[in-house]
Amino acid sequence: MTLTGNLLIGRQSIRGTNGSLHGIDAATGATLEPAFGGATPAQLDQACALAWQAFDTYREISPERRADFLEAIAANILALGDALVDRCVAESGLPRGRIEGERGRTVGQLRLFAGMLRQGDFLELRVDPAQPERQPLPRPDLRLRHIPLGPVAVFGASNFPLAFSVAGGDTASALAAGCPVVVKAHSAHPGTSELVGRAVQQAVAELDLPEGTFSLLFDAGREVGQSLVADPRIRAVGFTGSRAGGTALMAIAAARPAPIPVFAEMSSINPVLLFPNALANRAEAIGAAFAGSLTLGAGQFCTNPGLVLAVESEGLERFLEAAASSLARIGAQSMLTPGILHAYCGGVDALAQHPQVRTVARGQAGNTLQGQAALFSTSAEAFLADAALRHEVFGAASLVVRCRDVAQMRQVTEALEGQLTAALHLDAADHDAARTLLPSLERLAGRILVNGFGTGVEVGHAMVHGGPWPSTSDGRTTSVGSLAIARFVRPVSYQDLPDDLLPAALRAESALRHTWRVDGKASR
Amino acid sequence: MTLTGNLLIGRQSIRGTNGSLHGIDAATGATLEPAFGGATPAQLDQACALAWQAFDTYREISPERRADFLEAIAANILALGDALVDRCVAESGLPRGRIEGERGRTVGQLRLFAGMLRQGDFLELRVDPAQPERQPLPRPDLRLRHIPLGPVAVFGASNFPLAFSVAGGDTASALAAGCPVVVKAHSAHPGTSELVGRAVQQAVAELDLPEGTFSLLFDAGREVGQSLVADPRIRAVGFTGSRAGGTALMAIAAARPAPIPVFAEMSSINPVLLFPNALANRAEAIGAAFAGSLTLGAGQFCTNPGLVLAVESEGLERFLEAAASSLARIGAQSMLTPGILHAYCGGVDALAQHPQVRTVARGQAGNTLQGQAALFSTSAEAFLADAALRHEVFGAASLVVRCRDVAQMRQVTEALEGQLTAALHLDAADHDAARTLLPSLERLAGRILVNGFGTGVEVGHAMVHGGPWPSTSDGRTTSVGSLAIARFVRPVSYQDLPDDLLPAALRAESALRHTWRVDGKASR
Repeated sequence: MTLTGNLLIGRQSIRGTNGSLHGIDAATGATLEPAFGGATPAQLDQACALAWQAFDTYREISPERRADFLEAIAANILALGDALVDRCVAESGLPRGRIEGERGRTVGQLRLFAGMLRQGDFLELRVDPAQPERQPLPRPDLRLRHIPLGPVAVFGASNFPLAFSVAGGDTASALAAGCPVVVKAHSAHPGTSELVGRAVQQAVAELDLPEGTFSLLFDAGREVGQSLVADPRIRAVGFTGSRAGGTALMAIAAARPAPIPVFAEMSSINPVLLFPNALANRAEAIGAAFAGSLTLGAGQFCTNPGLVLAVESEGLERFLEAAASSLARIGAQSMLTPGILHAYCGGVDALAQHPQVRTVARGQAGNTLQGQAALFSTSAEAFLADAALRHEVFGAASLVVRCRDVAQMRQVTEALEGQLTAALHLDAADHDAARTLLPSLERLAGRILVNGFGTGVEVGHAMVHGGPWPSTSDGRTTSVGSLAIARFVRPVSYQDLPDDLLPAALRAESALRHTWRVDGKASR
Repeated sequence: MTLTGNLLIGRQSIRGTNGSLHGIDAATGATLEPAFGGATPAQLDQACALAWQAFDTYREISPERRADFLEAIAANILALGDALVDRCVAESGLPRGRIEGERGRTVGQLRLFAGMLRQGDFLELRVDPAQPERQPLPRPDLRLRHIPLGPVAVFGASNFPLAFSVAGGDTASALAAGCPVVVKAHSAHPGTSELVGRAVQQAVAELDLPEGTFSLLFDAGREVGQSLVADPRIRAVGFTGSRAGGTALMAIAAARPAPIPVFAEMSSINPVLLFPNALANRAEAIGAAFAGSLTLGAGQFCTNPGLVLAVESEGLERFLEAAASSLARIGAQSMLTPGILHAYCGGVDALAQHPQVRTVARGQAGNTLQGQAALFSTSAEAFLADAALRHEVFGAASLVVRCRDVAQMRQVTEALEGQLTAALHLDAADHDAARTLLPSLERLAGRILVNGFGTGVEVGHAMVHGGPWPSTSDGRTTSVGSLAIARFVRPVSYQDLPDDLLPAALRAESALRHTWRVDGKASR
């Protein structure tokens, strides 16, 4: 499949004429062909108009057909074969195995939502039957379903060019909810974006869906993304990226005549808490595993362990030695873009030069496109005194905070901003100490995990990939797992509607097919 | 029970020393004793500090005990007897029967949430069991529950001094979710607020809950409310009131270092669509019922029918005559406050003087504290041309828009801002025409009802009292009914936690007591 560099607007492939951008080979810095044309305001308008036109039709196609659509997207992505993997490896600098795994995850997400649609209870149907004899007033018949919000703007993320991009979790959950999607491709992987975009576009055609169900726009700057969020036909935004980027989109969304929700997943340093007995018993194993998690994908994970809290102890010293010796054996890796590498180096330099911070270890040095892992340590007092030490350094850098005791670990925890994850390493003898920290951690993070690292994000029904500000813009949501669909729907109540005017799922005939909550009690 | 005019901060009754305010007898304009003292910044700080202190304890008490608490509040409110009703009638100017009904509704809401807590599945527990043998990677054990957001600021509403005020739906759902509540009393009913506040305070003591579970603050101006929303310990806001007020609180919440959600229910004109056959067959009955709904509570309902859309016809003329003759028989009623009356008169005058608007009828004139109902009409063209005609006039005023045909009714519908309700009056022969409008109405409103008016808001599980902007700040929520609790919780995922560190509801022993969603499928 030859790349065109074109925008995908509805069923068309159109040359964008508002500047252009190229993919870059992350490992060599070489420019990759072709040039991708940025969308003009008129082209953006066309994509939004088509999405709006598609909305009422697309949202009412049967859940089964929507499931077929998601599965067709998955099949079309797999059918791209090596062409997709090769381009994605080149644009991201990520290892081939990682990209193949991420492709599997992307396809798995689409299939997870397809399964939910087939299961049919994601609409959360509720019925409060009429009570015509009730005194002093009869009770009306009330039926409730959730309907989609409208067209959704999705911003591809740099660090997961498949799973958080054109057909990633935001797109999959929005399409599953019944929302048309307009994607603003991330400039770091335009070729990957076009290939996946064409897989989606092809699925729209195969299922004979309204053409505005999906469009893909490129942007040589920031205009297209900003205009997309401001467009009155866009009704929600999915974004994964920097805190500055997410905050800027939130401001645009809030300033609209009719504000819309922005679901932005932004900034997290993902504290790892090492408890005394676990350290005493297996500091070396934890240190080695930590180094592996820290450097996975050059540390470019939202859930990368950027902060370690531990009580000063002989075990902590052994942990640091083990982590340092592991890091020394791990090669430097290409980072996603020169800009990300530049920001990473700036963050590492600031830590290295901080008077209260000690450099514990560095990974192997690499070429000018590669990030060198870094491990630092500081005292709890210094950490609490300087908010700059609590900022995310996106990449394979982490800061160990030496605490006097578990109470001080808790004090440090309370000083943190919201996080995606908090990981505890503990043995049975640590449970009592850990229990005193759990209330803080629940208030702090969307996911709490024991004896592991947050870098593996399971796609399932009980996953939360979200958390309090600033890890996300709305801690009541997740961008991974089946609950992600809840971001894109709203409840509508139907009172005393004649059966033939009710939506199909709420008609009497559907009572046998769907799980309803009748007077608040689940029943089938 | 003698009113003190004091703030209720935790278990204390404290004189506010930041200015003072009085209740006003809405029917006579007389000042009511005592004076209520406004909260100082230090007093507000104390309430927030206590709420924050209470949070971790209050959120982990058993659902059963929380249910007991809500039921104790309900019992204490009823135990206030006539003292509450008398004061509430005086402060609101609403009829005694209406206030008694509203008290029943308030108590009913508290009991609805108590019932949900006893039923136990509101936490939406999910479990994805571990798969240690899975290839290429084992699957961890993932368990999910929803936890409360933190202390919630609730703003009492002028128009429902019981059901949307100190112990109204926002407070009931926040307390049910596990959030401590700090109420900012509405200045129009301080005495009612103190009485109900003491009923809540007493229930906190009876159940031996942390004292910061509830506080009640008075405010002689706007400072207290604004500072409350800005306070870092407040984690969500419930508000019912004007668009200007809600928008101002949203701006404060968005500008915080860590933004929080504001659930504001604001502005709605609640279109009523009259279909041709219904008008032909029963224009008189619809007209009389409409006049009753329009003037209920002096029109001071969020769901008041402020807009009527109908096709030009002989039936429409009969509807207008019937509505006019009913209005002529309905006496003027006291409005809640002089400020609300002033705004109402201004809105009515603007419509009366609008060159494209005709005055169809006025209700009976009253004294200088009473609102006189008003019915206007205009053409669809004029309505579409002037956005000012689409603004809410809070009170018993409504505008009939004469449409050429059903297609033009749809065009008008598409031009409206988001609404709480849309009501359709139709007969069987109108179903085909109505069906063409339903997609617009679903996008427009939170509740669609047939052959009734939105002014009756049933408290149940399938109710939505919410809708797209500006009817609420977040159309994905409802402020009435059991779904209201969802505003105040967020999901937390627990990965591989040892059983004794899991929250009680997610431990193995609880599997028999709670409904869990296992791998996405509901099971008990």
